[in-house]
Amino acid sequence: MTTAAHVLARCAELDRISASPHHLERVHLTAEHAAANRLVAGWLAAAGLTPWQDAAGNQWGRREGTSPGLPALVLGSHLDTVPDAGSYDGMLGVAMAVAVAQRLRGTDLPFALEVVGFGDEEGARFGKALLGSQAVAGTWDPAWWDLRDADGVTLREAFHGFGLDPARVAEAARRPEELVGYLEAHIEQGPFLEAADRSLGYVTTIAGARRFRLSVLGEARHAGGTPYERRRDALVGASEAVVAVERLARVGGCIATVGRLEVRPGAVNVVPGRADLTLDLRAATDEERDRMWEVLRAEIGAICARRRLTLEVIETHRAPAAPCAPWLQQAVVDGIRTTDDAGSADPVGLWSPAGHDAMAVAAVADIGMLFLRCADGISHSPDEDVREVDVARGLDAFEAAVLRVAAVVGARA
Amino acid sequence: MTTAAHVLARCAELDRISASPHHLERVHLTAEHAAANRLVAGWLAAAGLTPWQDAAGNQWGRREGTSPGLPALVLGSHLDTVPDAGSYDGMLGVAMAVAVAQRLRGTDLPFALEVVGFGDEEGARFGKALLGSQAVAGTWDPAWWDLRDADGVTLREAFHGFGLDPARVAEAARRPEELVGYLEAHIEQGPFLEAADRSLGYVTTIAGARRFRLSVLGEARHAGGTPYERRRDALVGASEAVVAVERLARVGGCIATVGRLEVRPGAVNVVPGRADLTLDLRAATDEERDRMWEVLRAEIGAICARRRLTLEVIETHRAPAAPCAPWLQQAVVDGIRTTDDAGSADPVGLWSPAGHDAMAVAAVADIGMLFLRCADGISHSPDEDVREVDVARGLDAFEAAVLRVAAVVGARA
Repeated sequence: MTTAAHVLARCAELDRISASPHHLERVHLTAEHAAANRLVAGWLAAAGLTPWQDAAGNQWGRREGTSPGLPALVLGSHLDTVPDAGSYDGMLGVAMAVAVAQRLRGTDLPFALEVVGFGDEEGARFGKALLGSQAVAGTWDPAWWDLRDADGVTLREAFHGFGLDPARVAEAARRPEELVGYLEAHIEQGPFLEAADRSLGYVTTIAGARRFRLSVLGEARHAGGTPYERRRDALVGASEAVVAVERLARVGGCIATVGRLEVRPGAVNVVPGRADLTLDLRAATDEERDRMWEVLRAEIGAICARRRLTLEVIETHRAPAAPCAPWLQQAVVDGIRTTDDAGSADPVGLWSPAGHDAMAVAAVADIGMLFLRCADGISHSPDEDVREVDVARGLDAFEAAVLRVAAVVGARA
Repeated sequence: MTTAAHVLARCAELDRISASPHHLERVHLTAEHAAANRLVAGWLAAAGLTPWQDAAGNQWGRREGTSPGLPALVLGSHLDTVPDAGSYDGMLGVAMAVAVAQRLRGTDLPFALEVVGFGDEEGARFGKALLGSQAVAGTWDPAWWDLRDADGVTLREAFHGFGLDPARVAEAARRPEELVGYLEAHIEQGPFLEAADRSLGYVTTIAGARRFRLSVLGEARHAGGTPYERRRDALVGASEAVVAVERLARVGGCIATVGRLEVRPGAVNVVPGRADLTLDLRAATDEERDRMWEVLRAEIGAICARRRLTLEVIETHRAPAAPCAPWLQQAVVDGIRTTDDAGSADPVGLWSPAGHDAMAVAAVADIGMLFLRCADGISHSPDEDVREVDVARGLDAFEAAVLRVAAVVGARA
């Protein structure tokens, strides 16, 4: 089970674990989450790793190195999806990690080798991303227990429902001295590798991100009887904000997205009294990101003031930019060089506007990332696609990167 | 049970029949609809009318005139609400009709007196307004049977669920020769009576209206990885459309409202691939209304084309402007004059941008309407409010208008 074809078949197997028969949706602490963990636990055992689920619902496997109890090199990604997802965002990285561990089954390594499938990276259920990897990084915030999903279920209740004890979440945290580093393979989710005609790339840094929930409050009134001068239409204000977010982020070189917008009361003949929207903001550095937020907040505030609307803002997520460790970047570069991807050209380095589990793990371990080309840059969509040849090169490069890390760690000892 | 205080108490009684304990919501063909009909049937019986529910779920009551089987003067309004509604839109008119019928219990009339509480005026459940009164008007369109509510239930299924036989809906239709006319009392749902310091007004015409469902189709993509030049963001396109609708309708002297907007997939970190919105358009004449729709459609089409988005349009509702019959306008004017509302000034005539059951009934009977002042013009909101003194004057005026109709009909005979 170590070829690209095997890895893609395993992604297809995970596809069948979904909350809906019509599209792929597998979110945190659901029956689908549990089923995915069980499936991956079987793969891990078959690869010679000892599987366990941690206190936050992440699925792990471990094999010892040349002696028991050595610090671990962790390979992994996440098993959760957005609603109506594609098959590769997260899952490809987990399946590749398992395959590389299996390839190295007979190889002596100067570290333990661990594989992890995180239970929540997307934040699709509770609006808070990276819940799985934050637990592992020991950066859990008790305020999160009261986050609610769309059905009003709190994160605390969902932990209980999944058979986990909220009081024990700290047991999922890893200490820096237990870890050699963290390597993650992931589809690029962008168009640059395809444009450069490369299968693979290495990541230099992961963008800083912030997310907000914005509520625009006006007044619900009858659509027929209320003249324009009397209206305080929350949707028209929110719509001006959506258009302004795109315009300002674009000129500012940042990426800002309104992915969700809900209108209340939401009747065809009622002027909307309330609009709730999300804002996802990313930039190469934390400074650019924070500056852009100030610009956006001022502009949206001005729109609301002009329309006699009230604006409420809650920050739901903040992640600093996470640079990849130079020595792990180098290991990934060396890994890519063992393949026929770039020929004699230098491997392509990219910064990732997308967030990844590695961002959270960076709090307790050095991180490195390998990107794989995806079709037309599409992700978070059923049209997500990768080529088998790219996965084959990716597996070779990922395996070689692990051996490169082994050489470095071995030389240190 | 014939004073303003009684009428307001009955509105409060209806308030308690709601799909939610937190807000008022009573939509078509639900358990709440059935409960409201039962409550009103009791009021009708107590007022000396014989109650029945028709083949479309509307609640009626009738008392005969000087001889049995005479054509009927119908008084009424609707019993359904928008989500998160106020207490008076529709319900006040039904409660006033019952009270006036009770006041006239011992009075010989040259027509039968009927009261109706229509089961659907708002269209909140199936996106199609006036389903109750259209059945009565005999203008039912069989295509409506396949309309679906938010849970995917068809109108046909909802009829069955309510204990009605879709094959018999035509039995709800009334013939013109059965009807003397239709009088409806309703809150203004606008600010003009309050601005004029009047309790009451008469309606000259009800605006022409059209409603549409617009779908903006783009491509769902990862919010981090997709640069702006690769995006086809359905929400940004829809937002530009919302802003344009307000701007163009405003300068064109029409009223256009986007009351509902839904985004898919609706995740914080996914560029929206689809946005579905409703458009409600009203104008004093059908010509102005249709001209404005052409302008809006062209502008929204241009926005979508510029953003490489696809636009789909479905018309869900079209109602011609419905003028009130001059003789029934006069009866309402005469009724208002019997009160101390205007002093010696002429009663105020208004055109109604809001749609009413009377629009549909106009297909089979002459119509007339009495408007009551409401607080700050607010409607379709829990803040909807009326003053008891205005309801008291309204009851007197409505009763006097019925007697005025009796005088006219009696003189004809």
